[in-house]
Amino acid sequence: MARVLSGREAGAALNEKNREKVERLKAEGISPCLAIVRVGCEPGDLAYERNAEKRCEKAGVLVQKKIFPREAETKELLSMMEELNQDPSVHGVLLLRPLPDELDEEQIRNALDPKKDVDAMTDLSMSGVFSGRKIGFPPCTAVAVMELLDYYGIDPAGKHAVVIGRSLVFGRPAAMLLLQKNATVSILHSRSRNIRDLTCQADLLLCAAGRAGMVTGEMIREGAVVIDVGINEDAEGNLCGDVVYEDALLKAEAVTPVPGGVGAVTTAVLVSHVIEAAARLCRM
Amino acid sequence: MARVLSGREAGAALNEKNREKVERLKAEGISPCLAIVRVGCEPGDLAYERNAEKRCEKAGVLVQKKIFPREAETKELLSMMEELNQDPSVHGVLLLRPLPDELDEEQIRNALDPKKDVDAMTDLSMSGVFSGRKIGFPPCTAVAVMELLDYYGIDPAGKHAVVIGRSLVFGRPAAMLLLQKNATVSILHSRSRNIRDLTCQADLLLCAAGRAGMVTGEMIREGAVVIDVGINEDAEGNLCGDVVYEDALLKAEAVTPVPGGVGAVTTAVLVSHVIEAAARLCRM
Repeated sequence: MARVLSGREAGAALNEKNREKVERLKAEGISPCLAIVRVGCEPGDLAYERNAEKRCEKAGVLVQKKIFPREAETKELLSMMEELNQDPSVHGVLLLRPLPDELDEEQIRNALDPKKDVDAMTDLSMSGVFSGRKIGFPPCTAVAVMELLDYYGIDPAGKHAVVIGRSLVFGRPAAMLLLQKNATVSILHSRSRNIRDLTCQADLLLCAAGRAGMVTGEMIREGAVVIDVGINEDAEGNLCGDVVYEDALLKAEAVTPVPGGVGAVTTAVLVSHVIEAAARLCRM
Repeated sequence: MARVLSGREAGAALNEKNREKVERLKAEGISPCLAIVRVGCEPGDLAYERNAEKRCEKAGVLVQKKIFPREAETKELLSMMEELNQDPSVHGVLLLRPLPDELDEEQIRNALDPKKDVDAMTDLSMSGVFSGRKIGFPPCTAVAVMELLDYYGIDPAGKHAVVIGRSLVFGRPAAMLLLQKNATVSILHSRSRNIRDLTCQADLLLCAAGRAGMVTGEMIREGAVVIDVGINEDAEGNLCGDVVYEDALLKAEAVTPVPGGVGAVTTAVLVSHVIEAAARLCRM
């Protein structure tokens, strides 16, 4: 039976680290603060906001909320970004997206100073992920996977990591972070042929296809570490990942559940980015 | 025997296309112009400059040279970048690098407007390569490989492309361009184990390890397309690639020689970027 890599446990450990770091920063007179910018009242945005707020609160990170009506205009959002860039009491900014179609999302997200870009929404942060240069922060979910591996003492160096999915929000950034840790990396996607040939060679298999039940037992190498990043609903409407969990339990050396896997680390990573941003900005 | 993919031939075809495009732009009153910025007189810089100048001239692209003494200061280079950004008669800028250690290369290269960044020196251009967003241009050598494949009718879609080397100047950008063309992509590097396991599965094998003789026959899959990006010297001091050419001729379906392969396309790509930049900037 595979080890279960608990995101709840890894997330709790990171939350505890975050709390300690905030205490140390406060002793230096620095109070890390996240500004959340929301347009309208989409249920998905509200849920993410509540979750981020709760996690920040538990770590001692302040939260400012900037809420705009659904009808807000691009120029209002741009002024807000400028205001937040200039505000020395704000260290990280989370803009809930996607924005309504009427807004110029590209212009708005790039108006943010990358130093405060804790969720990789600016083009410059993405450049940092690609080049390994310290610009902004990588997307939280990709970092959450690295945290989870680190928590369980799994070093990607020299391993063959196979990433299913090439999205800019997970697949490509995760591939870059794994490369930086000296993994050999293969990237598969919807247009790949013979997917199984490569997945069966994976020491580390990261699944972010967004399709329930896509990864079955015969796609998993005996003894692999399987990280399930999918968030789907099964036929009964229950939350599930991309991996047939029972198959992974039998074949893999270790596997993350859904829920309670990578998703349970992501918000802790967001908070850690705010803390790191505060430390970088205030200690400069 | 493998087909020889001639960079000279592919480069000549691109040069001809460039010439035609410049003619069309001139008919619209647009004269594409590349500014070359050089500090000092390094022989490598001079050779690259001469080559770029010659290629531009043949295509009808103007060249402006901005030459600084070895002792130039960062602020002088920054003013020059600003001047070139503002100058509507300049469409592309090539800064010969590396700069002398005394200069703040990071600041200088990022001072350039990505719209004029024809050789991917700014962080924003790198972001564009990673995200596929149209910001700046990808590194010329990575694009040269795509041009070469295109010229010989080799479509990466669905193929397994294996890239040896993870540099920011070639390996990672090439991986991203291949992904955009729907290849399945694996990235190998100096810390990878069992390199041969993966190279032997490659439909497309791109070698940019920078080590003469590194890729031997037993690393090549029967019928693969082998692209040699290495530029090395052999024991006799002759220019050679990473691939044992005779081995590749026997095993591969197609192979690029060194010299006369990818390198022979790179400058034509630089010129095509200047032309494209001129078209984008002047037709806006």
